[in-house]
Amino acid sequence: MGEFDLIARYFTRQPVRAVLGVGDDCALLQPRQGTQLAISSDMLVEGRHFFADVDARKLGHKALAVNLSDLAACGAKPLALTLALALPRIDESWLAGFSAGLWALADTHGCELVGGDTTQGPLTICITVFGEVEVIKGQGQALRRSGARAGDDLYVSGTLGDARLALEGMQHPGAWPDDLLEQARLRLEQPEPRVALGLALRGIASAAIDISDGLLGDLTHVLKASGCGATVHAADVAPLLAAQSHPQWRPLELARPVLDYVLAGGDDYELAFTAAPSQRNAVKAAAALACTPVTRIGRMDAEPGLRLLDAQGQRLANSYASFDHFA
Amino acid sequence: MGEFDLIARYFTRQPVRAVLGVGDDCALLQPRQGTQLAISSDMLVEGRHFFADVDARKLGHKALAVNLSDLAACGAKPLALTLALALPRIDESWLAGFSAGLWALADTHGCELVGGDTTQGPLTICITVFGEVEVIKGQGQALRRSGARAGDDLYVSGTLGDARLALEGMQHPGAWPDDLLEQARLRLEQPEPRVALGLALRGIASAAIDISDGLLGDLTHVLKASGCGATVHAADVAPLLAAQSHPQWRPLELARPVLDYVLAGGDDYELAFTAAPSQRNAVKAAAALACTPVTRIGRMDAEPGLRLLDAQGQRLANSYASFDHFA
Repeated sequence: MGEFDLIARYFTRQPVRAVLGVGDDCALLQPRQGTQLAISSDMLVEGRHFFADVDARKLGHKALAVNLSDLAACGAKPLALTLALALPRIDESWLAGFSAGLWALADTHGCELVGGDTTQGPLTICITVFGEVEVIKGQGQALRRSGARAGDDLYVSGTLGDARLALEGMQHPGAWPDDLLEQARLRLEQPEPRVALGLALRGIASAAIDISDGLLGDLTHVLKASGCGATVHAADVAPLLAAQSHPQWRPLELARPVLDYVLAGGDDYELAFTAAPSQRNAVKAAAALACTPVTRIGRMDAEPGLRLLDAQGQRLANSYASFDHFA
Repeated sequence: MGEFDLIARYFTRQPVRAVLGVGDDCALLQPRQGTQLAISSDMLVEGRHFFADVDARKLGHKALAVNLSDLAACGAKPLALTLALALPRIDESWLAGFSAGLWALADTHGCELVGGDTTQGPLTICITVFGEVEVIKGQGQALRRSGARAGDDLYVSGTLGDARLALEGMQHPGAWPDDLLEQARLRLEQPEPRVALGLALRGIASAAIDISDGLLGDLTHVLKASGCGATVHAADVAPLLAAQSHPQWRPLELARPVLDYVLAGGDDYELAFTAAPSQRNAVKAAAALACTPVTRIGRMDAEPGLRLLDAQGQRLANSYASFDHFA
């Protein structure tokens, strides 16, 4: 099987909304009148973002999920994607699995594969996603990192730290009980992008970001873009580790390294967002609409910097930084 | 220097037309009312698409050029790009060169860098470009592969084969004179996408494709999409090797392997296009407007298949196939 058969067999379908899909020099999209197009691109490299032996279907899911998570953070409705793929060789069973995982998630979110590139090389996946953002009275409705204001509440969706716990557990066999690790691996390998929540928060949240590099690190991007500070209550964040539902796990609740995973683990793909206190009921309603749990974990301050407090209101040292691929 | 400094220093500028550029979860574009968005994505891998020691500035140029060439083939006006980059390490001198080459070509075509991704990994460059296509009376004006009709003239822009000649010359030192190789290397390392020609051909050409994998191979994609055949006059194509302007070179004009380079060399980034015979003057005018030489090399036939004829009208064997990364 050659490059063109590969594309035809695994990555081509008739476009539904796109004007032109896979198979020409360019794909063609016709955005609805008066909308903006949100665009995000993520590259996943074997050995860096995923293990060489990861299940192909899960990888297809995750490669798209991390991109859809960026659309979610902007409150954009997924429309389309392009896929550029470097493969060491043609492995039909891998391609069948990878494409099945990708299509399944794409179909869930009504996101069409419209184009891309295939080449030989070290396994690398680069997806670019396109989403639609409405413009109301001349104002684009995208959630941005820059909209947070002092006094706003700070929220996080879902649970945090599970992906990192899984990563550590896979690298140090025996560190955690098997059933706990299995549960955490689901979060690492098959994150669910919070698209519905992002859409529901339009007009309610003042700022949003997706947590890919760790809560506290990603939060600093919001502080910088918004020109304010924040206070985070570690005791409100700590129980967010989903794996804590495991009974044997409770005693470790606030101990490091587990707290580190929750506060700065990365690969969570939850949303952190801010909203004025007057929007508390609206946030609850949005969370209910999106069937996504949301927890208030702090507030935005006029004073710059990120303050981490324990359950007694005492300041904890914050030595967490956002994950940096070159640090 | 970390990942975020790298992005800030080399890959961030204030957006001009984009609503939101680098630095948030998504970039935001607002397409002009009633236009379509043309999208193309290309991935370049070290050792596969370029040599490890290629000049970084030239690589920055080429990585964008091959993408702009896809917009050119659709007659789309460049608007924006995203850049996803896997780097083995941070090398500031490399980054300065690469970004300078990229920006220079982007500025030439009014194409804004609006987002992307940076990670550690084997050197891999994935660019996605966005261009604008007008819609007139409900008809998108994009040039497509599927519009060629039997009886149409077949044209190619510029020159062909130089890039492949350079590639062979670099791999077999001494095969060609140094000054000839130097001239051909310009075409391999710094191709000029035919954006102006693509724009000028809207409403004139019936189909178009950019020649990245070799003239005859890429032409078969047009035949397949358009459901017709073609006759190509090898004697009209052969003199298109720019390096033939070299006096010592003339005797080799039609000899293999040089003819192979011209007909099937790849990496040319010229446009092959078709137009009705009634459009001959319009094609000439478009070529003049775009300051791009254009040569008529054949015609489209109702009979399927690709026929290659010599100067005497005798059929030549056509064993050329489009470059396939996995063949």
